[in-house]
Amino acid sequence: MMSTRLIIILQLIVSSLLAQSNDEGMIRKIYDEALARGQSYEMLEHLCTKIGARLSGSPGAAAAVEWSRQVMQAYGFDSVWLQPVMVPHWVRGNKEIGRVVNSKKAGSMEMSVAALGGSVGTGPGGVLANLVEVKSWDELKTLGEKGVKGKIVFFNRPMDPKLLQMFASYGGAVDQRANGASEAAKYGAVGVIVRSMSANLEDYPHTGSLRYAPNIPKIPALAISTRHAELLSGLLSDDKDLRFYMEMNCQTLPDAPSFNVIGELRGTKYPKEIIVVGGHLDSWDLGQGAHDDGAGCVQSIEVLRIFKAMGYKPQRTIRAVMFMNEENGLRGGIEYANQAKLKNELHIAAMESDRGGFTPRGYTLPADARAKEKIRSWKPLLEPYGLHDFSQEGGGADISPLAPQGVPLMGYLPDSQRYFSFHHTPADNFDTVDKRELELGAASMAALIYLIDQYGLK
Amino acid sequence: MMSTRLIIILQLIVSSLLAQSNDEGMIRKIYDEALARGQSYEMLEHLCTKIGARLSGSPGAAAAVEWSRQVMQAYGFDSVWLQPVMVPHWVRGNKEIGRVVNSKKAGSMEMSVAALGGSVGTGPGGVLANLVEVKSWDELKTLGEKGVKGKIVFFNRPMDPKLLQMFASYGGAVDQRANGASEAAKYGAVGVIVRSMSANLEDYPHTGSLRYAPNIPKIPALAISTRHAELLSGLLSDDKDLRFYMEMNCQTLPDAPSFNVIGELRGTKYPKEIIVVGGHLDSWDLGQGAHDDGAGCVQSIEVLRIFKAMGYKPQRTIRAVMFMNEENGLRGGIEYANQAKLKNELHIAAMESDRGGFTPRGYTLPADARAKEKIRSWKPLLEPYGLHDFSQEGGGADISPLAPQGVPLMGYLPDSQRYFSFHHTPADNFDTVDKRELELGAASMAALIYLIDQYGLK
Repeated sequence: MMSTRLIIILQLIVSSLLAQSNDEGMIRKIYDEALARGQSYEMLEHLCTKIGARLSGSPGAAAAVEWSRQVMQAYGFDSVWLQPVMVPHWVRGNKEIGRVVNSKKAGSMEMSVAALGGSVGTGPGGVLANLVEVKSWDELKTLGEKGVKGKIVFFNRPMDPKLLQMFASYGGAVDQRANGASEAAKYGAVGVIVRSMSANLEDYPHTGSLRYAPNIPKIPALAISTRHAELLSGLLSDDKDLRFYMEMNCQTLPDAPSFNVIGELRGTKYPKEIIVVGGHLDSWDLGQGAHDDGAGCVQSIEVLRIFKAMGYKPQRTIRAVMFMNEENGLRGGIEYANQAKLKNELHIAAMESDRGGFTPRGYTLPADARAKEKIRSWKPLLEPYGLHDFSQEGGGADISPLAPQGVPLMGYLPDSQRYFSFHHTPADNFDTVDKRELELGAASMAALIYLIDQYGLK
Repeated sequence: MMSTRLIIILQLIVSSLLAQSNDEGMIRKIYDEALARGQSYEMLEHLCTKIGARLSGSPGAAAAVEWSRQVMQAYGFDSVWLQPVMVPHWVRGNKEIGRVVNSKKAGSMEMSVAALGGSVGTGPGGVLANLVEVKSWDELKTLGEKGVKGKIVFFNRPMDPKLLQMFASYGGAVDQRANGASEAAKYGAVGVIVRSMSANLEDYPHTGSLRYAPNIPKIPALAISTRHAELLSGLLSDDKDLRFYMEMNCQTLPDAPSFNVIGELRGTKYPKEIIVVGGHLDSWDLGQGAHDDGAGCVQSIEVLRIFKAMGYKPQRTIRAVMFMNEENGLRGGIEYANQAKLKNELHIAAMESDRGGFTPRGYTLPADARAKEKIRSWKPLLEPYGLHDFSQEGGGADISPLAPQGVPLMGYLPDSQRYFSFHHTPADNFDTVDKRELELGAASMAALIYLIDQYGLK
């Protein structure tokens, strides 16, 4: 006769095996729903081609807010609401000019440029000045006021193509875009040109935010396409007296009203425990914001839609959040965290998708060791879907303000190779998104959210 | 005092650690060369945009042969030569017509179609007949001669979108394209229309080979775009008397002379042990053959170029082979294996790249248990580059005729999600190839070839 202890052990083993096989089945159903009847691609097509660019404060952003509210309402989520937030309102104005004026070899030549987000304009008279090229902060410092004053500084350090993870490569170059204007202005520069953030040679510029340091004159800043950065560098090395003309019509208007858009499935067992899945609804103004971050938004809505379509009733409350203003202020993310704190909400996990609609690689994991360990224990369930990378930490910009509340933050991690071909450019359009890749991303997010809903992260 | 045995053991451990760290360093150098100074992308641009389509027997194929010979010669490989082979010569002729003639709802309507490779033409009078739709061989059999005779059979079973590996999804549908014409002709059909091999809805058709069975009448066969397959199915369900008109001008001409193109780095230590890395140089006629298989060709050349650029002198002889005629005959692969046998050559490994220029996932492995085990033991060296899938067996069509000689066959395994959006279509063009993905593929191939060169597969 079996001992009671043995029976209990066997029961535990059997129930654990059953749970695992049930989880396998549920995850398979999630992917089936996403791949055979998925709606993320159709949603993204609408957002990109009917609404398009949606920089914070723009009519496009307002349209995107109302559209995503209606979409989630139509899917019948338990609650859908708008969370008000005031956002910065920067406008590009008429297309900027970047022109080589007197090159021996190229004569006068228009360059492919775009104002960096948040830049001041030049005024109608523009800025005409000599150029000086630098690839490092040390070079800038060495040049000093003597070498920089009255000139335009051309920051031309490329992204390192040898790095495997393109976000690491981006991280090694984006300081030029973020800080170049103020660093150059310290030495009396009158403007800056920044090589676009891409490892490839392209014909279009990449915009993106700059940060003006306090108490330093604000000077205008242009991004230049990588191909023209190479060209300009060559012309300049032939001809030190090269002069460059910048004309930019951008300006910062008063803050504008906007919203985070939130949809929710209420938990059946632990309704007060909230799991957030989100992306950011705003985009830069040059393209349609397809990968950055229309993809993350429609994938987040799709997670909830998949659960509803499967008839899955989550134990915890699951929220899809379309954050506003990630690109130039993070006001939406900050306000979401503020409100969560004010209302004493308990967030047990937050996941962001803001790395494009590409084929799955894995997830970025919470810093908390226990949560990390728990997610890694689910790897056997997720690896069959191409999710093998559980090595990196991190969440995403929009959910980062939840960190002080102790919320475990994580991210969906797609393949990074193509992201910086589109990021912040006129090419970030719907036609660069593959349907299956987008759907696999939504399913991969839903699969991990499902496991967190079932087992928590404690 | 240490025993001699202990000293020997310590020496072995140290030399093994040194070898591993040396391999790590060499593999890092391979990727650095491919990513920072790679030439695969420029090669592919030339092959696709200056030469373009290159179906066996076409002037384009001849140009590609001579171009790849010159490229490998210019890189200074130890030997470069052409291996003659006679190839089938099928031509499409004037663009084919597929027309709904009398739909109640659509009236007369042109459909997006393309003759399947190897199909007979219709003659100038075309074929006009009623349609019957089937999704399985059982349905066709049940219809029998009574339901099929004098009609055009419309094979409309989609690729299963729920499968994760797109080659598996393709494998579950491509029998319709390969065998549909002869299976329908057995029951007296006068033509067939086959739903294109894609899991997505698209506006363009996918061509590809059919096989006529012996002693069965050869009837003309068209591929139809997936979108029009859906449309046609809807029209037909509304209107059983729908008539369809096919007009195809394709024909098979006498066999034409062509070549495999081979470049070689001679082994310094075991020159008689040959490692092949290859792709196929021919492509379908509708697009530029960028992913299928220009990518595999330029990656194979790039493997040898990387070794030369690094100053790496392989121990074994490494051959890049551009096989001719994979798409509609496999004559190049067969002739390569024949010649290897005739010359008593010893091939210790063969690797094919014929799954597109996409981001790395892993390799398909030899069936031989020892070789498989050995490659898997290198996984820790390869995983940092996104190469995590060592689960599947297989080589590639072109190298498959080497199997009877006991050659371990393997393949480079990129991500499969996008491949069947381009495969055999007018969209398989250079602009769909990402530079970094292509380069990572070449480096991933070179890394494994390097390890095989160092350690063999025994």
